[in-house]
Amino acid sequence: MSAARARIYLDYNASAPIFPEVAEAVASALHLANPSSVHAEGRLARAAVEKARRQVAELAGADPACVVFTSGGSEAANAVLRGLSDGSVAPGRLLVADIEHPCVLTGHGFDAGDVSKLPVDRDGILDLAALEQALIAAEANGERGLLALQVANNETGVIQPLRAASDLVHRHGGLVMADAVQAAGKIPLSLPMLGADAIVISAHKIGGPKGVGAIIFASESIRLGDALVNGGGQEKSQRSGTENVAGIVGFGIASELVRRKLSEMPEIAGLRDQLERNIREMAPEAVIFGLNAERLPNTTALSLPGLRAETALIAFDLDGVAISSGSACSSGKVRRSAVLKAMGIDDALAEGALRISLGWGTTEAHINAFLTAFEQRVRIARARMESKAA
Amino acid sequence: MSAARARIYLDYNASAPIFPEVAEAVASALHLANPSSVHAEGRLARAAVEKARRQVAELAGADPACVVFTSGGSEAANAVLRGLSDGSVAPGRLLVADIEHPCVLTGHGFDAGDVSKLPVDRDGILDLAALEQALIAAEANGERGLLALQVANNETGVIQPLRAASDLVHRHGGLVMADAVQAAGKIPLSLPMLGADAIVISAHKIGGPKGVGAIIFASESIRLGDALVNGGGQEKSQRSGTENVAGIVGFGIASELVRRKLSEMPEIAGLRDQLERNIREMAPEAVIFGLNAERLPNTTALSLPGLRAETALIAFDLDGVAISSGSACSSGKVRRSAVLKAMGIDDALAEGALRISLGWGTTEAHINAFLTAFEQRVRIARARMESKAA
Repeated sequence: MSAARARIYLDYNASAPIFPEVAEAVASALHLANPSSVHAEGRLARAAVEKARRQVAELAGADPACVVFTSGGSEAANAVLRGLSDGSVAPGRLLVADIEHPCVLTGHGFDAGDVSKLPVDRDGILDLAALEQALIAAEANGERGLLALQVANNETGVIQPLRAASDLVHRHGGLVMADAVQAAGKIPLSLPMLGADAIVISAHKIGGPKGVGAIIFASESIRLGDALVNGGGQEKSQRSGTENVAGIVGFGIASELVRRKLSEMPEIAGLRDQLERNIREMAPEAVIFGLNAERLPNTTALSLPGLRAETALIAFDLDGVAISSGSACSSGKVRRSAVLKAMGIDDALAEGALRISLGWGTTEAHINAFLTAFEQRVRIARARMESKAA
Repeated sequence: MSAARARIYLDYNASAPIFPEVAEAVASALHLANPSSVHAEGRLARAAVEKARRQVAELAGADPACVVFTSGGSEAANAVLRGLSDGSVAPGRLLVADIEHPCVLTGHGFDAGDVSKLPVDRDGILDLAALEQALIAAEANGERGLLALQVANNETGVIQPLRAASDLVHRHGGLVMADAVQAAGKIPLSLPMLGADAIVISAHKIGGPKGVGAIIFASESIRLGDALVNGGGQEKSQRSGTENVAGIVGFGIASELVRRKLSEMPEIAGLRDQLERNIREMAPEAVIFGLNAERLPNTTALSLPGLRAETALIAFDLDGVAISSGSACSSGKVRRSAVLKAMGIDDALAEGALRISLGWGTTEAHINAFLTAFEQRVRIARARMESKAA
């Protein structure tokens, strides 16, 4: 085993490696001035921010005037859930599925009693009948509903019926925020087609820099009634604070790149399918989550009876393969997945959940390297199951 | 006049040009992974963030465990004003001077009736007697006070008697947030010596990247009772969202650089004094604001009767000199300064206010270039005053 062996990175859903073109653009843009300054240096920075705004808008099929830059997806979701407004009555009830990202589950100002948790099926798909019931109950209670729904789940890649959910919410007079953080760049993203009132996205999930994201509103009549960060009035007072110019520039380039690379996604899906085929051949006892649902082309979440995620991750890491046990949003600790729990997966199985997420740089060699390492884990898991049974 | 003539940048208080060493470190760190990931790539990113935390802490003479990274000074101030807690009663009254930055004046959750505006004198110094009265009134009302006070003003560079104010507030059982955004790197910054419970700083004012800042608490028993951005639990749940790793790395390097460069500040102060001497020789009618107060070594705010800031800035810009008319925190528009208004400067004079702010790269040649351009403005302003008088 050579110390210089290349690492295999299959954790794109945690953070996608930055595209070289993006890194170069960010490095140059680090020298730009404050875009609020009126001098030539300031105007140059302003132009760079506005170009990126058009690039990000195009990724979502949206109007650049409706893009508000934030420090990332979490801030964006917090801001929308606290302040989304179409000028009418403020939403009084938050509707949310258990499979949502923690920044949606905890990043809102609603009292616990004003939040309705909606069930998902075993594949992690939102129960639309339950959504409608919740909307009807809210209406009966004189409350306006705000649905927060992922376009696709970060752990399983399962894609939600967002358009159907949006239509349902709108028929009942509510508002919709779509968390498109994991979907952006991996499947075509059209705000008008999603039907949401606002979406949130993050640069570092699409090969951009960490520390920048955006809220994109469906129209100029939808906005934050109250901004989360107030002050100098940047971003039309929707998000104050000197703009992260270099980060925004990188976000713009990354948006353009992944939009153009959408045509490569069938190839990535092919690698993912090859991965799953091999996994099931190697270990028919492996369970792949969300298998019956429509999923992102890059994500596989699986569990192997007898395998514990925490030790498995360390073993994969020693073998040079970087994967994860679910989301990477906590304190570096491996916790049992709330997403799988919501999907009704039992604890013993959820305990061994692994996430393999592919991306723009993934090759067949990476998949094979993963499978070689996986074979070891299968052997150990089976031995463990056998010694348990004995 | 050559098109290739080098520009003269004297707007460090709007944004300091990034140090080459910082830009290089940021560019490398763009390739780091998600610090919450448990694999080797994640641990490398984590180590980079923690190193920067120690560097930033050292700039403020603070404990690294008390540093919370944010997306900048504005977010940091918003978060502290909304959530600062020492575990005791939450502050019920915000005490704030009119000269504070907009992110302090507007970035808080206090009702208008629960905010006491404190006066400053003609040099922009907080009236400590008024502060004490306000604290006594709050106490009588059963309210705990929270003072938000700048260490130094962004427009005038005037330094506040922060230690005295902190002591006063603490004697009356209150809490103190110090906005050290403009002071950091320009004067020695010691959280214990300031006596504040929390300070906020921003990377791009000290030659770091835009889009990153920090809250630094005086001790581990002080924190945000409610975080502004919730979710994945990063930054000990004080600030969720994937860390801006590259920005944080750059912030760390910049903190170390400006800490070591504090010894260069007397030189910068010398250039600033030379600038002001020349200005007053050229135009004895010029008014330099805060002249009788202790000021940052790099900032000059002045006004020239007959000069209008908006047209003057454009003229300076055409002459290749980048300065500003006050803060750069609005929409690129030149507005009359709220800071000067609070200092009792009359509108006619405030209308012509210019800010020249020096920094680590400023040379005597820059000062001379400014003075050459200034001479033109003086001529025009005098002609305007004469035609008015005629």
